[in-house]
Amino acid sequence: MIKVGIVGGTGYTGVELLRLLALHPQAEVVAITSRSESGVRLGEMFPNLRGHYDHLAFSVPDVDQLGGCDVVFFATPHGVAHAMAAQLLERGTRVIDLSADFRIRDAREWSRWYGQPHGAPELLPEAVYGLPEVNREQIREARLIAVPGCYPTATQLGLIPLLEQGLVDPLRLIADCKSGVSGAGRGAKVSSLLTEASESLMAYSVKGHRHLPEITQGLCRAAGAPVGLTFVPHLAPMIRGIHATLYATLLDTRTDLQKLYELRYADEPFVDVMPAGSHPETRSVRGANVCRIAVHRPQDGDLAVVLSVIDNLVKGASGQALQNMNIMFGLDERLGLNSPGLLP
Amino acid sequence: MIKVGIVGGTGYTGVELLRLLALHPQAEVVAITSRSESGVRLGEMFPNLRGHYDHLAFSVPDVDQLGGCDVVFFATPHGVAHAMAAQLLERGTRVIDLSADFRIRDAREWSRWYGQPHGAPELLPEAVYGLPEVNREQIREARLIAVPGCYPTATQLGLIPLLEQGLVDPLRLIADCKSGVSGAGRGAKVSSLLTEASESLMAYSVKGHRHLPEITQGLCRAAGAPVGLTFVPHLAPMIRGIHATLYATLLDTRTDLQKLYELRYADEPFVDVMPAGSHPETRSVRGANVCRIAVHRPQDGDLAVVLSVIDNLVKGASGQALQNMNIMFGLDERLGLNSPGLLP
Amino acid sequence: MIKVGIVGGTGYTGVELLRLLALHPQAEVVAITSRSESGVRLGEMFPNLRGHYDHLAFSVPDVDQLGGCDVVFFATPHGVAHAMAAQLLERGTRVIDLSADFRIRDAREWSRWYGQPHGAPELLPEAVYGLPEVNREQIREARLIAVPGCYPTATQLGLIPLLEQGLVDPLRLIADCKSGVSGAGRGAKVSSLLTEASESLMAYSVKGHRHLPEITQGLCRAAGAPVGLTFVPHLAPMIRGIHATLYATLLDTRTDLQKLYELRYADEPFVDVMPAGSHPETRSVRGANVCRIAVHRPQDGDLAVVLSVIDNLVKGASGQALQNMNIMFGLDERLGLNSPGLLP
Amino acid sequence: MIKVGIVGGTGYTGVELLRLLALHPQAEVVAITSRSESGVRLGEMFPNLRGHYDHLAFSVPDVDQLGGCDVVFFATPHGVAHAMAAQLLERGTRVIDLSADFRIRDAREWSRWYGQPHGAPELLPEAVYGLPEVNREQIREARLIAVPGCYPTATQLGLIPLLEQGLVDPLRLIADCKSGVSGAGRGAKVSSLLTEASESLMAYSVKGHRHLPEITQGLCRAAGAPVGLTFVPHLAPMIRGIHATLYATLLDTRTDLQKLYELRYADEPFVDVMPAGSHPETRSVRGANVCRIAVHRPQDGDLAVVLSVIDNLVKGASGQALQNMNIMFGLDERLGLNSPGLLP
Repeated sequence: MIKVGIVGGTGYTGVELLRLLALHPQAEVVAITSRSESGVRLGEMFPNLRGHYDHLAFSVPDVDQLGGCDVVFFATPHGVAHAMAAQLLERGTRVIDLSADFRIRDAREWSRWYGQPHGAPELLPEAVYGLPEVNREQIREARLIAVPGCYPTATQLGLIPLLEQGLVDPLRLIADCKSGVSGAGRGAKVSSLLTEASESLMAYSVKGHRHLPEITQGLCRAAGAPVGLTFVPHLAPMIRGIHATLYATLLDTRTDLQKLYELRYADEPFVDVMPAGSHPETRSVRGANVCRIAVHRPQDGDLAVVLSVIDNLVKGASGQALQNMNIMFGLDERLGLNSPGLLP
Repeated sequence: MIKVGIVGGTGYTGVELLRLLALHPQAEVVAITSRSESGVRLGEMFPNLRGHYDHLAFSVPDVDQLGGCDVVFFATPHGVAHAMAAQLLERGTRVIDLSADFRIRDAREWSRWYGQPHGAPELLPEAVYGLPEVNREQIREARLIAVPGCYPTATQLGLIPLLEQGLVDPLRLIADCKSGVSGAGRGAKVSSLLTEASESLMAYSVKGHRHLPEITQGLCRAAGAPVGLTFVPHLAPMIRGIHATLYATLLDTRTDLQKLYELRYADEPFVDVMPAGSHPETRSVRGANVCRIAVHRPQDGDLAVVLSVIDNLVKGASGQALQNMNIMFGLDERLGLNSPGLLP
Repeated sequence: MIKVGIVGGTGYTGVELLRLLALHPQAEVVAITSRSESGVRLGEMFPNLRGHYDHLAFSVPDVDQLGGCDVVFFATPHGVAHAMAAQLLERGTRVIDLSADFRIRDAREWSRWYGQPHGAPELLPEAVYGLPEVNREQIREARLIAVPGCYPTATQLGLIPLLEQGLVDPLRLIADCKSGVSGAGRGAKVSSLLTEASESLMAYSVKGHRHLPEITQGLCRAAGAPVGLTFVPHLAPMIRGIHATLYATLLDTRTDLQKLYELRYADEPFVDVMPAGSHPETRSVRGANVCRIAVHRPQDGDLAVVLSVIDNLVKGASGQALQNMNIMFGLDERLGLNSPGLLP
Repeated sequence: MIKVGIVGGTGYTGVELLRLLALHPQAEVVAITSRSESGVRLGEMFPNLRGHYDHLAFSVPDVDQLGGCDVVFFATPHGVAHAMAAQLLERGTRVIDLSADFRIRDAREWSRWYGQPHGAPELLPEAVYGLPEVNREQIREARLIAVPGCYPTATQLGLIPLLEQGLVDPLRLIADCKSGVSGAGRGAKVSSLLTEASESLMAYSVKGHRHLPEITQGLCRAAGAPVGLTFVPHLAPMIRGIHATLYATLLDTRTDLQKLYELRYADEPFVDVMPAGSHPETRSVRGANVCRIAVHRPQDGDLAVVLSVIDNLVKGASGQALQNMNIMFGLDERLGLNSPGLLP
């Protein structure tokens, strides 16, 4: 039984980790921390968890207690994992960070986008970017995982088959992405109120969103070359789900794109390439650790249009974090992650 | 491994059965029928099921094939189970009917509300009303189960502790119920369009709803006396969930209602009596086989107000059906039904 | 042209007043105040207002400026109108208060429910409760109007025909009410996030809600006797709308209730009694200053079930405020309030 | 008073025309037809219209009756206006067609996309495409107007300033559009059910959507050259609203795009160019006849990103139809169309 600790379990990635771990046969949550909610039982804060975890309450983060865990997940705002990761790694505890703290390999670049100095640049060399479809072997050996962001997961899985094969112009990529409101977190903000965000759709951060450098870094790696990406995120009136609509200019229109995608992901348990002509719906992955992809070439032209959907809280966060844990601990990668999406 | 057949799997109770059965360790779906969708693979109709059941396609209902199953679920419009149940029972196959066909013990009463003759009155004596919190022992021995309706489940579980103890006036009960739109099924109806049903709330069938005689029958049994119930269902702008707000006039205001409910359901795995003063949210049971209940006495008066929530497709239909199956086959009642609700 | 001032225009009743006043041919907004947003143009805060009010920005409240108006609306948290109303009345400015400050005639009762001393008890004798269907004549002469709350409007209009005629037991009334999330205001609260409040339904404040004494006061007046009311509000997953489902025990079942309601409201421009057997939808009044009502007697029993719907921001707040203004200034009561609801 | 007839008023563009015409001071609806609903009063079908149009019921379409109108709107499926327009024009009645029947100037192209022969090719030369921001002068003199589609309105208004000035590569345009479900009409379809379409987002018709040739035709005209457009429509979980996110490659990055758009639309009453850096929300135009536009150049690169939002039923259909009527009859273009959007 893997002993699991969770730092910062009061947000949506926290409660989603708990929901998924409740079904995991080989892992047990032994500590969950929250400074503000210390002493509160999990079921008081998240009524869906009543009857599960009845022995657990939020506690003040304590490195010694967490250091007794086999693995600690950080479901925290950025900066927190910077401060605690080294101490846990020293104690032999592995760290899976759902925040952005270790996603960007260049500390200065991180600092530019997050508006504060990087708190643990010395850990960057060993941090592994936890996208199993790209880095499975490194994840196996890793002590410190940076779980990819939600937009980056949907966008990278959608574009890397094209970039790895050099089939598209890497300098003219577009990612038009739509996200549910849970992507904005559980903080009390006027813009996330039902009265403001439902029955409406809007773009935001068109000038530049923090996920841009993370996506660009991953796409560069896939392309083996610099990439130019225009990334336009939108807020859609739903709780969960990301729909990435990806545009790439083909250098060669003779390749069978359907086959390319099917081959690239043939052995991937959590990437589902849909039949030619399909349109994946975000609801088909609600609550499920799956990325569904369809690839199109409208009017048989030279523009590839890739549709890629995930649940931002599962394959875009907590499910992917568990997938990493399964790989790190030598378990079947699908353990605890095999539920179908909740539809309707 | 229990061999499972499903008749009529193209509606919402059908896909929900399939979602839940995908996680059940002791049951395997071997046949699923639909006249209209014969030959269609499950994942084509329900994309959340892609990667599960890849060996299965809808087939034309065939009694011999279904008769090879240990149990057959009917997720059909009313009347269908009437026609096929006897043939399956003769072949030794147990039948769990999610439709209304066997819920009402009086064939003439059934006929009055459903506008057609009862098709199998000879089976009524052995049909067991599948509310485990009331009929667990009979379910164990049953060959034919009538799974309770969604409103009836939420309402009965909310009121029976009061009625069983004779604490309230049985002739002045009110059930003000609110349901998500999935309760109206997957049929194409203007009134269920997103454009018609979202951003609105309305009562319907105030004159008389088909669930009224079913609820009344169950409450009578609990009360051991005739009951008078006013049942007002409402359509709420959400996919899943029932919230029953129940009003009963106390004959005696000295009883500790909180304690009464806690005792009544102390051993029930799927009824969660919340702490005094709570207000259960339907989302806390989304996708979960749980009924959450809170009991209030506003202004310390003589009116008990009980709040009872379920997911209409789980504890109100397919989850309860599996709970019955677990009991009938001597399994742990919770098998395959232990997931927390999906929140947010 | 009536010169209008608005105090506290940054909440939902404020923006709704502005939306409605933009269409009013005889009123002109000359001042709108907000301490926190002073200097901000209206269209910056509420993009639907771009192109309207381009000359106006929020300003710090100033009694002299507001005192130059013919009428000032308070769309403020409770307590603010207490502090400023007297000064405005002295300057000859009429006051229409959308907050709860002057709704309850008994200052001690107000104080008990609002947890602070009443700030202007000396004004209570002249404050008129602005429900035109009850108090039209007093409104005509009033200097100070207390606009009814949203739940109180839907509930009183639904029940007073029965109470005025002494047809029901006044001590056993039930109001099961469902409200959209805008009723909770524009404040940043976790419980009002789309991620928390959508796809769910819950009761709240079952122990006692601040609108209870206001409703009870109005019903007592209609009944000419004490009333006993159980009021259970629910939060429904939609932006606007209140659906009140009202239960009253008939003392005499021979009265033609349909006729009673039609007669009671025959001359009311903003109460629509629907045909017998109807079920009003909240969306039918979205954005409109209408209360739609249907009255039922299920199973021909002795319980009257009244369905009453309003838009909480229009007939439940800002529209009713303007209706009061029209009456006070001798205008056609319907001026600026005649738009059909927005459907779909 | 302009005498107005409406053919086919049972869909969403029909009820929206009625809602808007109820506020129009110079137009009066004298006939509204529907074969299937003949005899039904408007308020029975659309409860928001109760109290308006109480004299009117749906009638069987009759050319003589309609020919007595000054103008007839067609809010019908395609093909219907083909059959009736000539007869009305002969009687001196002007025709404003909200369907696609006269939008495409090439009858063969129309036939290819709509799968049936064009029913009135002889009328195409005089049909005017009713986009006032492009064709105001022709509209003034027109007898027959083809009201633009919803996607075409949002997309053309967003792109024409760039194309008219030759600032972008006309062959590499992308329109990533998101629409509310009312765009799919009021027909009973499983895919439009609340249970299917809410809490989800999906692309559709990526291979080719019927609005593609209409948009291309308009963009070609603006560019004075052939254009290449990739158009990807998406279904978003909301009732109303279109958000077009438009991508165009700049040939010259020195132009001040903000100024360009402000100048282009300086005199347009219904196009609102937002301040630099803005992100228009679809809800800001809910119920309003406005197109709100913001123009961006992310990372100061050579890709222009234009955000353009409309209410698909107003500026994308019925509001624009009335705007055309106002122009045709020499009225103030804004008459009856000046309401702010409904927010929240």
